[in-house]
Amino acid sequence: MSDETSASLPSSSPASEAPASEAVTSIRPPPGPLPAGLVLVSTPIGNLADLTIRAAACLSEADLVLCEDTRTTARLFSAWGISTHMEALHEHNERHRIAGLLDQLRQGKRIALVSDAGTPLLSDPGYRLVRAAIAEGLPVTAAPGANAAITALTLSGLPPHPFLFIGFPPPRGAARRAAFGQIHAAEQAGLSATLIWHEAPHRLAEALEDLATVFGGNREAAVARELTKRFEEVRRGTLASLSTHYAENQVRGEITVLIGPADVEATGADDLDRQLRQLMSTHSVKDAAALVAGAANLPRRTVYARALQLAREHREDNDITANPPDPLE
Amino acid sequence: MSDETSASLPSSSPASEAPASEAVTSIRPPPGPLPAGLVLVSTPIGNLADLTIRAAACLSEADLVLCEDTRTTARLFSAWGISTHMEALHEHNERHRIAGLLDQLRQGKRIALVSDAGTPLLSDPGYRLVRAAIAEGLPVTAAPGANAAITALTLSGLPPHPFLFIGFPPPRGAARRAAFGQIHAAEQAGLSATLIWHEAPHRLAEALEDLATVFGGNREAAVARELTKRFEEVRRGTLASLSTHYAENQVRGEITVLIGPADVEATGADDLDRQLRQLMSTHSVKDAAALVAGAANLPRRTVYARALQLAREHREDNDITANPPDPLE
Repeated sequence: MSDETSASLPSSSPASEAPASEAVTSIRPPPGPLPAGLVLVSTPIGNLADLTIRAAACLSEADLVLCEDTRTTARLFSAWGISTHMEALHEHNERHRIAGLLDQLRQGKRIALVSDAGTPLLSDPGYRLVRAAIAEGLPVTAAPGANAAITALTLSGLPPHPFLFIGFPPPRGAARRAAFGQIHAAEQAGLSATLIWHEAPHRLAEALEDLATVFGGNREAAVARELTKRFEEVRRGTLASLSTHYAENQVRGEITVLIGPADVEATGADDLDRQLRQLMSTHSVKDAAALVAGAANLPRRTVYARALQLAREHREDNDITANPPDPLE
Repeated sequence: MSDETSASLPSSSPASEAPASEAVTSIRPPPGPLPAGLVLVSTPIGNLADLTIRAAACLSEADLVLCEDTRTTARLFSAWGISTHMEALHEHNERHRIAGLLDQLRQGKRIALVSDAGTPLLSDPGYRLVRAAIAEGLPVTAAPGANAAITALTLSGLPPHPFLFIGFPPPRGAARRAAFGQIHAAEQAGLSATLIWHEAPHRLAEALEDLATVFGGNREAAVARELTKRFEEVRRGTLASLSTHYAENQVRGEITVLIGPADVEATGADDLDRQLRQLMSTHSVKDAAALVAGAANLPRRTVYARALQLAREHREDNDITANPPDPLE
């Protein structure tokens, strides 16, 4: 469609799934040409009307649209009457395809990149291509739009900034708890941000259970799913209550899990210290640190360092050895 | 416009600032009614064509649009032929207005909330109102769209996830360096994420200088400005090179600063350890920790705990005192 200067976008209504604002009867793309280069185009996360006017124009005018899954993008194209040539770009072929795509960009082609839903790159392929195009000095721009993590964040009722978007946690229990533990360790060191993950529906219950174990059941949290669609749901509560709810209620669809920021001054660090002090009254520093690190799923090194400091403070407070010799002096 | 079932959006072209895809000649909002409740509507971050079809419909059909600055939103409305009643909701009046707005929501009004640009709440007012509406069980939904931080992230060439969006750093030097230091401390504890801030143009040079001081001049970074507009620019380089560039080149516009993730294994923690070991060969543990904490702008407590651990490991490696008595035993 690249040579058409007045290509008309859909005259048909999109098969949107949201209760309101579903059917835009016509949009016309701008007559001006899309410039050469790579354009990262954000697409809807559920409601087909969540496409920007410029995104529709970019997709319509591009010489080629790179899709995560062409069948998914075909549904969007069908709803909006777009017929641009599509090709798949995914995890398994991205490396192979880069050289050829860079050639096309050098020749002045207009290439649009989309993911199945939302803003490309965020949890999806395309990053290698973008890096390669930037390295070659080829033009890269964006037509911004919907993003599931940001949408979930604004609807969660949790503090909207700072926030840390992590992506999908590891699928298996031990690795997942270790990944959560690493972020919990960063909180012990002062990180205070709303935390955001995506999760597959069949892993939601066990992920929430692990989150409650690592971050504490009282932590404020939210689970968002089917955003912008008819059955949009944002459930808010503590990690413990959400863990219980989703253990008893199977759900479907794309899921975003959010937990509120650590109250760094008041909770995390003090809990850790209290546990360490208690255990150190009956165990060695090393054993106390190992026990706390195990229970809280924190790196032993971090907990041990803190335990050593507490032990030293305790010693100084009790004046057991005034001015102990410094081991390195 | 709330009673019209076929209100037609603009027949005029928007005064967009981007080189391409500027002029959509007509869009029609859906005929279905917008449901009662609060809807968070994302608006463009620069290019007026970056409005979603559903966002245009929501703004057009709402009984009331709450704006950060009605003059800014008036320009968007004018471009798209929207004439819904606007009222200001900002930092200074949000608390006062909440009770009245909740009353209107209870009566079944459709209220849209927008910020000056992008997704509301992220660096903008509205969070208190959303919390209050959620607490009352009133419907809150979203029409997602553009967001400057996410757009900058995808164009930066930096790893797109995990990422930590922080917002604006404190405006003054000491507080700003302390805030950067707190995040750097979290990196020492294992945080590895692309970091994103907004910054005012007249503070960009000094903020970059502080970032280079705290995170190291070699750290990969990017500065994005005028995104989606005619003079869109994404400058990529090390913190040192960007700091030099913007010290010599004044810029204007909305600015997003991004730095790549810490290479936790290879750099941050090891650098700290190396510095501590070196200083501990000539200084007391306490003095070494104080010097390193001061130089790296890290919390003394964190660095001291690590220094104590290194000292202990050193002692054990050198077998100066095999099995030293544990201070708490």
